[in-house]
Amino acid sequence: MHQPLLPLKGIIPPLITPLSDRDRIDGEGLRRLIEHVLAGGIHGLFLLGTSGEAPSLSHELQREFLKLACEIIDHRVVVLAGITDTAMTETLDFAEFALDVGVDGLVLAAPYYFPMHQLDLERYIRELAQELPLPFLLYNMPSHTKVDFGIDTVMALLDLTNFVGVKDSSGNMHYFNKLIQLTHERPDFSVLIGPEELLAEAVLMGANGGISGGANLVPNLYVDLYDAALTGDLRDVQRLQQQLMRLSRLLYEVGTPPTGYLTGIKTALELAGLCSGRLAEPLYAMPKERRQKIQQHMQDLGIFEMIVSSNN
Amino acid sequence: MHQPLLPLKGIIPPLITPLSDRDRIDGEGLRRLIEHVLAGGIHGLFLLGTSGEAPSLSHELQREFLKLACEIIDHRVVVLAGITDTAMTETLDFAEFALDVGVDGLVLAAPYYFPMHQLDLERYIRELAQELPLPFLLYNMPSHTKVDFGIDTVMALLDLTNFVGVKDSSGNMHYFNKLIQLTHERPDFSVLIGPEELLAEAVLMGANGGISGGANLVPNLYVDLYDAALTGDLRDVQRLQQQLMRLSRLLYEVGTPPTGYLTGIKTALELAGLCSGRLAEPLYAMPKERRQKIQQHMQDLGIFEMIVSSNN
Amino acid sequence: MHQPLLPLKGIIPPLITPLSDRDRIDGEGLRRLIEHVLAGGIHGLFLLGTSGEAPSLSHELQREFLKLACEIIDHRVVVLAGITDTAMTETLDFAEFALDVGVDGLVLAAPYYFPMHQLDLERYIRELAQELPLPFLLYNMPSHTKVDFGIDTVMALLDLTNFVGVKDSSGNMHYFNKLIQLTHERPDFSVLIGPEELLAEAVLMGANGGISGGANLVPNLYVDLYDAALTGDLRDVQRLQQQLMRLSRLLYEVGTPPTGYLTGIKTALELAGLCSGRLAEPLYAMPKERRQKIQQHMQDLGIFEMIVSSNN
Amino acid sequence: MHQPLLPLKGIIPPLITPLSDRDRIDGEGLRRLIEHVLAGGIHGLFLLGTSGEAPSLSHELQREFLKLACEIIDHRVVVLAGITDTAMTETLDFAEFALDVGVDGLVLAAPYYFPMHQLDLERYIRELAQELPLPFLLYNMPSHTKVDFGIDTVMALLDLTNFVGVKDSSGNMHYFNKLIQLTHERPDFSVLIGPEELLAEAVLMGANGGISGGANLVPNLYVDLYDAALTGDLRDVQRLQQQLMRLSRLLYEVGTPPTGYLTGIKTALELAGLCSGRLAEPLYAMPKERRQKIQQHMQDLGIFEMIVSSNN
Repeated sequence: MHQPLLPLKGIIPPLITPLSDRDRIDGEGLRRLIEHVLAGGIHGLFLLGTSGEAPSLSHELQREFLKLACEIIDHRVVVLAGITDTAMTETLDFAEFALDVGVDGLVLAAPYYFPMHQLDLERYIRELAQELPLPFLLYNMPSHTKVDFGIDTVMALLDLTNFVGVKDSSGNMHYFNKLIQLTHERPDFSVLIGPEELLAEAVLMGANGGISGGANLVPNLYVDLYDAALTGDLRDVQRLQQQLMRLSRLLYEVGTPPTGYLTGIKTALELAGLCSGRLAEPLYAMPKERRQKIQQHMQDLGIFEMIVSSNN
Repeated sequence: MHQPLLPLKGIIPPLITPLSDRDRIDGEGLRRLIEHVLAGGIHGLFLLGTSGEAPSLSHELQREFLKLACEIIDHRVVVLAGITDTAMTETLDFAEFALDVGVDGLVLAAPYYFPMHQLDLERYIRELAQELPLPFLLYNMPSHTKVDFGIDTVMALLDLTNFVGVKDSSGNMHYFNKLIQLTHERPDFSVLIGPEELLAEAVLMGANGGISGGANLVPNLYVDLYDAALTGDLRDVQRLQQQLMRLSRLLYEVGTPPTGYLTGIKTALELAGLCSGRLAEPLYAMPKERRQKIQQHMQDLGIFEMIVSSNN
Repeated sequence: MHQPLLPLKGIIPPLITPLSDRDRIDGEGLRRLIEHVLAGGIHGLFLLGTSGEAPSLSHELQREFLKLACEIIDHRVVVLAGITDTAMTETLDFAEFALDVGVDGLVLAAPYYFPMHQLDLERYIRELAQELPLPFLLYNMPSHTKVDFGIDTVMALLDLTNFVGVKDSSGNMHYFNKLIQLTHERPDFSVLIGPEELLAEAVLMGANGGISGGANLVPNLYVDLYDAALTGDLRDVQRLQQQLMRLSRLLYEVGTPPTGYLTGIKTALELAGLCSGRLAEPLYAMPKERRQKIQQHMQDLGIFEMIVSSNN
Repeated sequence: MHQPLLPLKGIIPPLITPLSDRDRIDGEGLRRLIEHVLAGGIHGLFLLGTSGEAPSLSHELQREFLKLACEIIDHRVVVLAGITDTAMTETLDFAEFALDVGVDGLVLAAPYYFPMHQLDLERYIRELAQELPLPFLLYNMPSHTKVDFGIDTVMALLDLTNFVGVKDSSGNMHYFNKLIQLTHERPDFSVLIGPEELLAEAVLMGANGGISGGANLVPNLYVDLYDAALTGDLRDVQRLQQQLMRLSRLLYEVGTPPTGYLTGIKTALELAGLCSGRLAEPLYAMPKERRQKIQQHMQDLGIFEMIVSSNN
């Protein structure tokens, strides 16, 4: 990531991983999906995150996917890649691979098997950082990793020059507002919000952007909301937010939380003809009745029209 | 609460309860504190909430306090009173007392001993509502009551005409944004935010105001932030928010969470000469070294000056 | 509690509170229930605990109930009374009342509104203990109070001579085994288990007995299991445990956890003709279909026969 | 695992993985450790579990370790191997490898990144089971995987003939007692307890044995306790339990929970001269002062003598 790219900003969708079979990529779907989100005006892409189901894919498939996606994207936008693993050696090896295929930055969540303490976490990140070949963001995801990057831990790590930001998916806006305060001291540092329902307020309060999963489906909605928040147009913000909240309720709450978001979005992408809706085990696609509900909700929300218009 | 008062809006501090001894009111302190916050421009007062330590006070003292506070306030601003109890009969008796002493509205959290299910909770609120003599807000406080008022529960209760709003202290802004969506359908319905660190974004997103504990100490800061958010002045919002976040860190994080906020604010009020800093058992005032830290932080933050200026 | 009573031991049912209406005692039911459990050979009674729904009863009703129950029991077994309240003054007043009506010992859970820290908790118990007119047990109930009495806190309080035991309802047997170790040093100290599914192993490992809710219904089953564990008859223990586990599944898991135990037992008591099954708000009796399920399960378990035989 | 081996029973230590450097095996230490536990009379070995830090080791190292350990053990006792991974394909590949190097049975925890629902979990295990080349146990480890194998899920899977038992590390003995009830219907099915502080009561109540981490260090203590519980000698059980509780407190509570157990045991093994005490990142060995504390506690507990005597 060249200095001019920093701080990272805008809408950076966490790309889902289209799968045609168990541990097999839907290559055509991937190509369509990437062109779709690029057409929607997004500012970057985050590959192999939670929405990308990276931990459910074999190491080999993760590499194959990263290589292919980078080829398709071909540097048209900045590319971030998730490198989190429970084994440090695997994380480092994968980071080298990411460098080789042209990734711009890395994203690192806490190792997610052993419950972690802040001091061990800080030491671990510090040791890793010294061997990482690219700038990295920390990815705060306590619902999956069982631990937050405490604000003191983040502050202690700010001296690492390749530590260039945090993606926060905790949903805890008090914590997020503390992160925003950190950018006053390091202007190259990015603070990005995970949950899309919090995108608008995050940007209004000073955040740099969002890793919004829904932008896989209707990227322009998220880009518009980001723009409205950036310029402080509260009327537009509240209007687009109302639309987003309705989408969130109708698509993400059909399946069971906290993965209803992921099954909802993959189902919708398949129904929109963009790519396969298959999930990687241990998650499974929705049963038929729920799929029909999603289909109906997509019509009610005008998603099909939004997708067509965004691609023209 | 006369219809013209609805929806409730602005900064409505959860008044702390000044205590001179175990289960005894510091009457002079109370008088000074009320005049102080009124001078700061606040829009209403919430008595006997969590910050008011209501559950730690005897039933008798709660009545004595409510009567005295209402006399001092003397209808200069709208007054809300907490009536939550684990016993339904006690809640109803206290609601009648509140009516008698001139309270405008009631605030009701979930009964907090038995872990509750949503259906029981809905039924309980519905039964209570039919016997309450005043309009009421629900008070969502899961860190203390072990249960959220689920969004579906809130929606199901919207047909109760005396149910006029929600105070949400969950800190979960996704949930809060769902509450805001409800106000589009019932314009007399108030959505108020508890945690003051989230006040600005709540108002920017459409909330009616905040029950901000820090407004006991520096009411004008919260009133100014509310005004800036209401008018969409993002530059001012971010500047005042930075000030508030600093205050929050320096005063509320000296004591241990999650009650460090309460011990911090009571200590600061005592150091500012407004009222006694004694807490009601089972909470206890800070040890000396922490008090000195608070004193130092108040100087660093310019709190003493802010208090003087707000009272002139 | 006279010294000879210590350590407390055996099966001490947490008596449920029979209610004929909102905040009104079913006096006849109470009489029948007390005679029923006494006939079953139980070793003591614990009034106004969680199973007694004390926090859901008005202060006045709690007093009325305690007086009446003590009169009926008339010192035939040792009587413990719950005195937990969120307000210290109320707890102390109620303890005096308990002394007046002839209670032998007090039971004290953590105050359950504010999340507590161990140091505050220790200080609070210590201050209370100095004013309590009777010996007391601590009641560890983290699912309802949000806090454990940490093992270090319990140890620190062992110097209080009127602190005579712990009732542990945490379900955490590692913690419970630590409590048992404490009895090696203070032979007058009782360690009693709450969840009845853990009664057998608790006694096998050295506990003094159990506060078993199911003993409201079939006291002899619990007394027999206690006796078998005390004498180390593993074959009998495992046979009776199998019976108890079946009862637990068929009666307590019909309603929703964690209060399904309470609704199950009250329903069963009503179906057995012992007393009213009404619960105190905010809990509610089971709907009809579930009641029928309980009825069927009671037949399958042979509960009706067990009750008849225990009363002859 | 040949039918005669079932049900699995006795003390089956979860072998720790001795490491000489980052992602490198301490081969000599491994050899000494295996001879040490075999000399202590243990009944089987569980490789690459949580105590074995499997998720922190690279895939390559896991294979190297499994092969080497199996060669050293050379079928002297039954060998179980952990095959849990977040990616299904990796789990299946590793299971084949385990078959090739002579493992007797497999151990499978829930995939530990995505929060799981019971229905997905059941489907996932069922699909995996059909492709596993060896009998397997489920490993219930909610503190690390964020999910329990619900008792209904376990029951639903009992029709799988290669599903031969559960290792439960939840610490929830109510749940564990439900598991024990299942063995009444399938006598080839094993129920093994994880936390060693619960070993005695588990066996007294009918469990088949324990996966006791402390048996890496003093295997004979655990074997003796198991034998005492099996024969129902309560006096011996309580005496040995007192010894075990003391060891647990003095060795496992020096480091921070919940991994203080692991750092304690690895430190003790190094101090006893058995193998390297290095942990796999992201966990780290204890600082010097804590190591000295462990050394002192080992002397107080007589661990050094116990180790010598067990090896003679």
